[in-house]
Amino acid sequence: MIYITRRERFNAAHRLFKPEYTDEQNLEVFGKCSNPNWHGHNYELYVTIKGEVNPQTGFLVNLKELSKIINEFVIQKLDHKNINIEVDFMKGKLASTENLAIAVWEQLDEPIKQLNSQLHNVKVYESENNFVEYMGPNT
Amino acid sequence: MIYITRRERFNAAHRLFKPEYTDEQNLEVFGKCSNPNWHGHNYELYVTIKGEVNPQTGFLVNLKELSKIINEFVIQKLDHKNINIEVDFMKGKLASTENLAIAVWEQLDEPIKQLNSQLHNVKVYESENNFVEYMGPNT
Amino acid sequence: MIYITRRERFNAAHRLFKPEYTDEQNLEVFGKCSNPNWHGHNYELYVTIKGEVNPQTGFLVNLKELSKIINEFVIQKLDHKNINIEVDFMKGKLASTENLAIAVWEQLDEPIKQLNSQLHNVKVYESENNFVEYMGPNT
Amino acid sequence: MIYITRRERFNAAHRLFKPEYTDEQNLEVFGKCSNPNWHGHNYELYVTIKGEVNPQTGFLVNLKELSKIINEFVIQKLDHKNINIEVDFMKGKLASTENLAIAVWEQLDEPIKQLNSQLHNVKVYESENNFVEYMGPNT
Amino acid sequence: MIYITRRERFNAAHRLFKPEYTDEQNLEVFGKCSNPNWHGHNYELYVTIKGEVNPQTGFLVNLKELSKIINEFVIQKLDHKNINIEVDFMKGKLASTENLAIAVWEQLDEPIKQLNSQLHNVKVYESENNFVEYMGPNT
Amino acid sequence: MIYITRRERFNAAHRLFKPEYTDEQNLEVFGKCSNPNWHGHNYELYVTIKGEVNPQTGFLVNLKELSKIINEFVIQKLDHKNINIEVDFMKGKLASTENLAIAVWEQLDEPIKQLNSQLHNVKVYESENNFVEYMGPNT
Repeated sequence: MIYITRRERFNAAHRLFKPEYTDEQNLEVFGKCSNPNWHGHNYELYVTIKGEVNPQTGFLVNLKELSKIINEFVIQKLDHKNINIEVDFMKGKLASTENLAIAVWEQLDEPIKQLNSQLHNVKVYESENNFVEYMGPNT
Repeated sequence: MIYITRRERFNAAHRLFKPEYTDEQNLEVFGKCSNPNWHGHNYELYVTIKGEVNPQTGFLVNLKELSKIINEFVIQKLDHKNINIEVDFMKGKLASTENLAIAVWEQLDEPIKQLNSQLHNVKVYESENNFVEYMGPNT
Repeated sequence: MIYITRRERFNAAHRLFKPEYTDEQNLEVFGKCSNPNWHGHNYELYVTIKGEVNPQTGFLVNLKELSKIINEFVIQKLDHKNINIEVDFMKGKLASTENLAIAVWEQLDEPIKQLNSQLHNVKVYESENNFVEYMGPNT
Repeated sequence: MIYITRRERFNAAHRLFKPEYTDEQNLEVFGKCSNPNWHGHNYELYVTIKGEVNPQTGFLVNLKELSKIINEFVIQKLDHKNINIEVDFMKGKLASTENLAIAVWEQLDEPIKQLNSQLHNVKVYESENNFVEYMGPNT
Repeated sequence: MIYITRRERFNAAHRLFKPEYTDEQNLEVFGKCSNPNWHGHNYELYVTIKGEVNPQTGFLVNLKELSKIINEFVIQKLDHKNINIEVDFMKGKLASTENLAIAVWEQLDEPIKQLNSQLHNVKVYESENNFVEYMGPNT
Repeated sequence: MIYITRRERFNAAHRLFKPEYTDEQNLEVFGKCSNPNWHGHNYELYVTIKGEVNPQTGFLVNLKELSKIINEFVIQKLDHKNINIEVDFMKGKLASTENLAIAVWEQLDEPIKQLNSQLHNVKVYESENNFVEYMGPNT
């Protein structure tokens, strides 16, 4: 079993809040991340997949295909977008890094099986000091 | 003459657009950065000041005081904010990194003189691939 | 299960030596790290915790609370200190990065349970080329 | 059980290709990485070992000895070399990062046992966006 | 005057040698960088340009156009190439980082004038420990 | 004129204080950096030199020789040392990063002339957030 990781990046706006709360309540729970006028981040996404090396190519997968899948199912939907408003797979969810990591896993799990490999880990950096990892519903 | 640089960081939302343009025109000129629903960045700010070493302290300035000034005049106004809507010193300006660097210079130029030193360079990273520098109106 | 990691930093002096050895013996075993006049590092600490996402907040934990705990139980005791002399939880221990990682785990294990989550991994960087990880006494 | 990681670096040339293919076929399968005139990388290698802390030293291993082993068995053979032509442990293998990580594991597995510790993970960065990890034949 | 910097990256093989020297003489002068079987690097290129902010856009230049020019005149010619053999603007030159920085300047100087701005600085990183800067023939 | 920069690193202990002050006075002026039991840093040093490219080698200088000079005159004297007590060229000076940068300049200015080049800039990072630059007594 070999593990390969691809880094992709996206810039997005978001806001942490519950629609049923007042601005004051949101401020109390979510702090300055609840700013009704939004803020944003340069997110870094690390996608790790695992499987056997293909003896014909020496590759687990062709990284160009992996990058293409990540871009199609995740990056194009998030980059230069508002996570709360514009991202179909985040609709109705709190736009936390935790929920984002889980949603990215759900976006990528099936497509990566098409590459004869398995999704192993989704890691989302919100800043140089904070990151979230998710390894699927069975872990 | 000695030069000292302090890094500070802030996260903010912004949008590149001209209010007199339609969304289509803005898209043509500013690309995906014109998204009407905003996007955002983890900005990094490097402030360089210059002057003589104080022989009593071995310091150009006390870095805590420099950091306090940068936070008071710049970071608190930008961090977790919407640059287009909420930042007094960016009102009426296109929210480009270039204009941001110039405006940060104007915010800091006078206060740094209080520290018996001079502002030398303001550098703003928008991403790991792009940054802007401004060294004042006489350069 | 979701994993979230917080980075914190501290600067400290230390020395690797055994008090029952002579300076020559310490030099032989610990090299230049045994310098009786101390040396020091910019340490980086990565604390990873795990648990379930709270559906009310979208968070595993509020990162401000996590950061507060790490600062109270670890950083304030280490930052700008001499690890051999001044840090209660390192008393009587060799000031190696290995022992530091284990001691940080022991400092954080209980307090993090108060956040309805579990400590998963403590990672201490001594330099860009060396780091130590500890995942608890049962691993 | 404690884990310690050492980073080492090497610069090398390589090419991805199968000798039985034409240049056109290689280009189709391996893209620009198949350039017959070679290209190259600044590789970063992270070697993680695990074991018990030695109570006499506070160390898992002396990092100088670990670094010496990695240099003797891996770095000296790869640094400033052509991976396809000059590296004995890559002879007859496709010079992919996956195969390189596996071959580095095989080079280090036995020597690291001499340090009273076990090899845990070999991680090879080919660029800031791509890296491969291998944790041995039983994982 | 405002300064904007764009980072681009390329991977290439090269060798430092003089064709009129023997391999032994090249080894003596250029060390392991003279390996006749080549070695390579992940180069990082930072291109800094300067000029006035365009009041219509808030930009010095549109970074997409700057990136396009750097890619057309420099990156496509260097990426995944052998600098000694395949790069037209390095023909007949020693493939040192110094000569590379000067040649990149010469490639970019004219095209950047088309953007109503001026080339200010070309910086080439060969590794995290070494980089070269060139600011044109008049400096 | 071409500029080349070499990075070297060292770990050291230090303390900011004036011997004629009490511990309380030192604490007031220098904060936690005045801790009488010392603290320390992973310092990064960037040395930039300038000159003409040697047409015989394509080099400004051989980087091995530059690195050797920096190590002999600076790194060996600072690495794993106590800057206040053990470093001859810091004797009697406040151990601030400013004074360190100036003293490193004075150590390197003459030796670098032996390489047929000139010292241009000494940059000392004390942490990822703070660094000092010195460009000589005439700037």
